[in-house]
Amino acid sequence: MIFDKKIKDVIKQTLQLDESLVAQQKKFNLNTEFLSTANKENHIELYQNYIKEFNQISSELDTVNRGTVDSNNSDYRNLKVAETYNMNAAYLHELYFANISDLHSKITTDSLSFMRLERDFGSFDAWQKDFIACCLASQCGWAITYLNTYTHTYMNCSIDLHSLNVPFGSYPVIVMDVWQHAYYKDYLKDVKTYTIAMMKQLNWKVIENRFKKADAILNVVRGK
Amino acid sequence: MIFDKKIKDVIKQTLQLDESLVAQQKKFNLNTEFLSTANKENHIELYQNYIKEFNQISSELDTVNRGTVDSNNSDYRNLKVAETYNMNAAYLHELYFANISDLHSKITTDSLSFMRLERDFGSFDAWQKDFIACCLASQCGWAITYLNTYTHTYMNCSIDLHSLNVPFGSYPVIVMDVWQHAYYKDYLKDVKTYTIAMMKQLNWKVIENRFKKADAILNVVRGK
Amino acid sequence: MIFDKKIKDVIKQTLQLDESLVAQQKKFNLNTEFLSTANKENHIELYQNYIKEFNQISSELDTVNRGTVDSNNSDYRNLKVAETYNMNAAYLHELYFANISDLHSKITTDSLSFMRLERDFGSFDAWQKDFIACCLASQCGWAITYLNTYTHTYMNCSIDLHSLNVPFGSYPVIVMDVWQHAYYKDYLKDVKTYTIAMMKQLNWKVIENRFKKADAILNVVRGK
Amino acid sequence: MIFDKKIKDVIKQTLQLDESLVAQQKKFNLNTEFLSTANKENHIELYQNYIKEFNQISSELDTVNRGTVDSNNSDYRNLKVAETYNMNAAYLHELYFANISDLHSKITTDSLSFMRLERDFGSFDAWQKDFIACCLASQCGWAITYLNTYTHTYMNCSIDLHSLNVPFGSYPVIVMDVWQHAYYKDYLKDVKTYTIAMMKQLNWKVIENRFKKADAILNVVRGK
Repeated sequence: MIFDKKIKDVIKQTLQLDESLVAQQKKFNLNTEFLSTANKENHIELYQNYIKEFNQISSELDTVNRGTVDSNNSDYRNLKVAETYNMNAAYLHELYFANISDLHSKITTDSLSFMRLERDFGSFDAWQKDFIACCLASQCGWAITYLNTYTHTYMNCSIDLHSLNVPFGSYPVIVMDVWQHAYYKDYLKDVKTYTIAMMKQLNWKVIENRFKKADAILNVVRGK
Repeated sequence: MIFDKKIKDVIKQTLQLDESLVAQQKKFNLNTEFLSTANKENHIELYQNYIKEFNQISSELDTVNRGTVDSNNSDYRNLKVAETYNMNAAYLHELYFANISDLHSKITTDSLSFMRLERDFGSFDAWQKDFIACCLASQCGWAITYLNTYTHTYMNCSIDLHSLNVPFGSYPVIVMDVWQHAYYKDYLKDVKTYTIAMMKQLNWKVIENRFKKADAILNVVRGK
Repeated sequence: MIFDKKIKDVIKQTLQLDESLVAQQKKFNLNTEFLSTANKENHIELYQNYIKEFNQISSELDTVNRGTVDSNNSDYRNLKVAETYNMNAAYLHELYFANISDLHSKITTDSLSFMRLERDFGSFDAWQKDFIACCLASQCGWAITYLNTYTHTYMNCSIDLHSLNVPFGSYPVIVMDVWQHAYYKDYLKDVKTYTIAMMKQLNWKVIENRFKKADAILNVVRGK
Repeated sequence: MIFDKKIKDVIKQTLQLDESLVAQQKKFNLNTEFLSTANKENHIELYQNYIKEFNQISSELDTVNRGTVDSNNSDYRNLKVAETYNMNAAYLHELYFANISDLHSKITTDSLSFMRLERDFGSFDAWQKDFIACCLASQCGWAITYLNTYTHTYMNCSIDLHSLNVPFGSYPVIVMDVWQHAYYKDYLKDVKTYTIAMMKQLNWKVIENRFKKADAILNVVRGK
């Protein structure tokens, strides 16, 4: 397919980019007493740095040389690897901060969240057990419940760092940071106690909204 | 949040899993003359093996011990790493086979595919250039155009193997296999000639359908 | 080459394995006040766990099926990946604990350590600057000064986790743990302050002995 | 330890760098008929490119900014990752080309190679079986028999790409390239047939010399 260059310039004028790649820092209220203030402040600063780096990388990618790209070593490759790393970091931190620290955490059996976890993991308890297992299995990274657009189910995954062992075709609904930076100040190597503490304060209102979107996405994927 | 176990069993009976994790092999017609018959047959066999492995792993995950998971070494961790690896491999191969080898490849300027690539990459040519750069940047893996649910745009990514440097929150629309297994038989190290040959036969009908779903997904994500 | 099986059994009796793969926990005195007691105790326990895991994996490798190994998923592959991960972890932790926490740290200009670092990095200051850069460059891992048997020089490397981005053909002389578990309890994200504190207490007596061995190794490699 | 800057300049003049980081391309005669001419020529060109890249990276590292290194994204980190990747690639390719393609391959039971493999793997056959398993276990990379300076034994490892899952403290003695680029032209996915063909032509004279050095290195490590 060789595209006809003549018509393009006309078309382009009628299109409009309504979302730029400049990520904006969001604000989060972390009231949980399961994490120390020093830990929380440090974590927010880490997140802000990822946002800053991602914007910087996006900007450099605008003009990087695409003509002599080499998989062994090239600015383009390096920037793309870093783009995915920092973009995932920014995205997952936002999802994490938004879905923890609910002092009135509560899930009801008639919620979509509950029903979908029951359906795809066998039981809510089974989901909890599997999710904790994912938290313990990561060498330093993330545990995530997400809609998988290949299997058409909700699955848990265990990621190393920000971009290793990551499933393709995913929409995240529950996100737990299990980098050592998330818990070492307060829990040292006891990632299990940290994880269970965070799970007691999951914000199921936020999560419910994500499940609603995920279910709608699944309908789209299935052509319904 | 401690969930009330009493009500669950009732609920569970009303739910039904309508999609299992047993992946089914799909069939593909690869008429392209840019790949040798030996190459194509070999590639299909690789794909079939990923499907087999994924199903095997899924089955083992059903009963693996989740009680003593350890990030240093545990059956659970090993299976989850392998699950993501083989699941991505199966998924991406299906998308790749389905979107190449169209002997009558054609894209029109009024297609959603064209308009979205123009919008998010500046021009269709810019997308092509960037996509080829992603193909050349992978050390052995995949180049993918996908909807990113964080940036709300279509982006290109360059993956190593099946699950390294993978963006989270993604819906794939154009998929190119740049593992060495995809082209070495016919092109040796000339990944660029292979890539351009494959791009001349992209199946834009298949891709257009994916863009339509992706755009609908983006509307869901944005709450529209 | 098809080896003659007849003679082997005789030969084997005359050979003797004088070193088994059972790693023994070593003890370390960490008197440094730059690390809290809680941090030090936690770190030693992590190390002990790596030793335990490595021995467990070695034992499982003795009898694992080698007949149907598959790169996509097989017990053999999983064990080998875990073997390298835990073996590196055990080794590098031993080298780290042994070369930090010297309250009377001192290097003299007539030491081999000093002369080799001057020779291969241009100046001792240049080595320090490069080593700190390696500490800051790791996403969660190690910075190491080592003899490289390919370049025949002392080089610095920056490793992620325990086994990613690792040079082949290496003999370690100076080892710094820059996993987040090494400093987060006491320094949060300030890896630079942690690194400089540790470098002020490098045990140059221990390091000198390693350089002497490394130099002797280099002579062997060069055939001198 | 704060080093006294005054004396250094005097000392530096008496030192001399007798080995630079400029790698030189070596030449190899690959007479084996188990690989096609096209495959062999392609492979040599790949190797030459790694040498070129490594030299380029080394040169860039001389002057890269070490003052503001960041693990999320910085020129220094990117160059160090690429340095290790290309350096390993250059080193391992040289070792591989030098130890294959011996049309008169022969190992005798009184060789050090034979005795050490018997000692550390239980039997020569056991080594062969384990080495083949490592070849099959790599997702795209290397299988290597090497002296491990931690365990003080000869071990096999299975590496992905050039620098993933790599043991620290290693001296290589037998090296097999199991990247798909090494065999796909001639064997497609049949890595086992390729591996066994290469093993029939291992150059045990070259390998014997490496074992002699490795044994001498082990004596150094052990302080003998």
